[in-house]
Amino acid sequence: MTSAERPEPEAVDLGGVAGLVLDVDGTLIDSVYERTLAWKRAFATVSAHPPTWRLHRLVGRDGRAAVREIAAGLGADWSEAEVAEIRRRYEAAYAQSSATVRPLPGARDLVRALDASGRRWAIATTASRAATEDALRVLGGVRPHAVVAGDEVVRGKPDPEIVRTAAARLGLTAPEVAFVGDTVWDVMAARACGADAIGVLSGGWSREELRAAGARIAVTGVVELVTALQGTRSY
Amino acid sequence: MTSAERPEPEAVDLGGVAGLVLDVDGTLIDSVYERTLAWKRAFATVSAHPPTWRLHRLVGRDGRAAVREIAAGLGADWSEAEVAEIRRRYEAAYAQSSATVRPLPGARDLVRALDASGRRWAIATTASRAATEDALRVLGGVRPHAVVAGDEVVRGKPDPEIVRTAAARLGLTAPEVAFVGDTVWDVMAARACGADAIGVLSGGWSREELRAAGARIAVTGVVELVTALQGTRSY
Repeated sequence: MTSAERPEPEAVDLGGVAGLVLDVDGTLIDSVYERTLAWKRAFATVSAHPPTWRLHRLVGRDGRAAVREIAAGLGADWSEAEVAEIRRRYEAAYAQSSATVRPLPGARDLVRALDASGRRWAIATTASRAATEDALRVLGGVRPHAVVAGDEVVRGKPDPEIVRTAAARLGLTAPEVAFVGDTVWDVMAARACGADAIGVLSGGWSREELRAAGARIAVTGVVELVTALQGTRSY
Repeated sequence: MTSAERPEPEAVDLGGVAGLVLDVDGTLIDSVYERTLAWKRAFATVSAHPPTWRLHRLVGRDGRAAVREIAAGLGADWSEAEVAEIRRRYEAAYAQSSATVRPLPGARDLVRALDASGRRWAIATTASRAATEDALRVLGGVRPHAVVAGDEVVRGKPDPEIVRTAAARLGLTAPEVAFVGDTVWDVMAARACGADAIGVLSGGWSREELRAAGARIAVTGVVELVTALQGTRSY
């Protein structure tokens, strides 16, 4: 058994954090692999077949930048209209497969604990508002103090706009919040505006990759944050 | 952009290697994500819902050990018959989705170059003989000097039996071959019998994880080996 396959838990310290901002896909719901194959189906409709592992690594990134990155790898020269059409097909393919998507371990406990605590917390995701509302339903109809979806910002992650906007809607600055996410795009977005970054392994990135991007800590999943919250009186 | 998302190429040196042994899934064909969701569907049929990223990391591992690992994580106590049934459903689910599976970049060039060179090369995979024959058809009907499939050995990877058997069928010892694979299970199997291990990133594991398991080198994919073979007169 390797450390990567069943990594040792790391201790989470949320002291000094005034608000918590959470990513959705790969962090609260177990949707990254369905999203990966949705990208694969979308690209196949334009006869493009990038290696699937590269699509996996684009989940959670700004959609337009993701398609441009794949185009560069393939040497494709898609127009803005074609890029928009591939993104539309990706959203449609994901919507078709999302019925099998479930909360990740601890996710419902985490959002319920946050709901009950009266603490400031927000959702910040590159996904569309519609997909985000579906995800919140999967989580049991929780009520974050703020939701920032991908179609409300000019640039998705790794641009910090989405994290900064979420912090502002909580009445906080970015350095006062901790952002929890599963991808290097999440970590980079958080670090670019001075927010604390907590990585989770539940999206399939390795601990080393998340830490190299700037995560203070990388835990196996949000289930480890539930314990940390219960042990922390204020943060 | 991070190093993990678009890693820098590493130079491959195949000097001193008498034979090449190749993994299939995630190495020659782009099937790891379909296999991951096939595991997800198989476990769902027994109302088990492990996080998908853990299933991703079990692809390529001995099937019985993989199911036992998931059982341990869930606290499930499945009988041998139940484990066998989950594995059967996994194979059936993968067979249903495998029509979309294509060769990885460079895979056809690599096996064609090996075929033409007269060099000793073999396939060594945890997948079943039937799935392996399907994969060889996807690659264009190549003729390796030996094929060792998962149902021909007592223990799949990371046990070294599969690599040692492949080397023996080439008339070589394990330390005389290089084994190319995408998972830490491949790397561990190779290192456990003294074979050289070359990692490829096309299964979704990170370079750091493959190197930590003992890979001498980790390249983005077999496309980089084609170049190395063309530049090497003998190996």
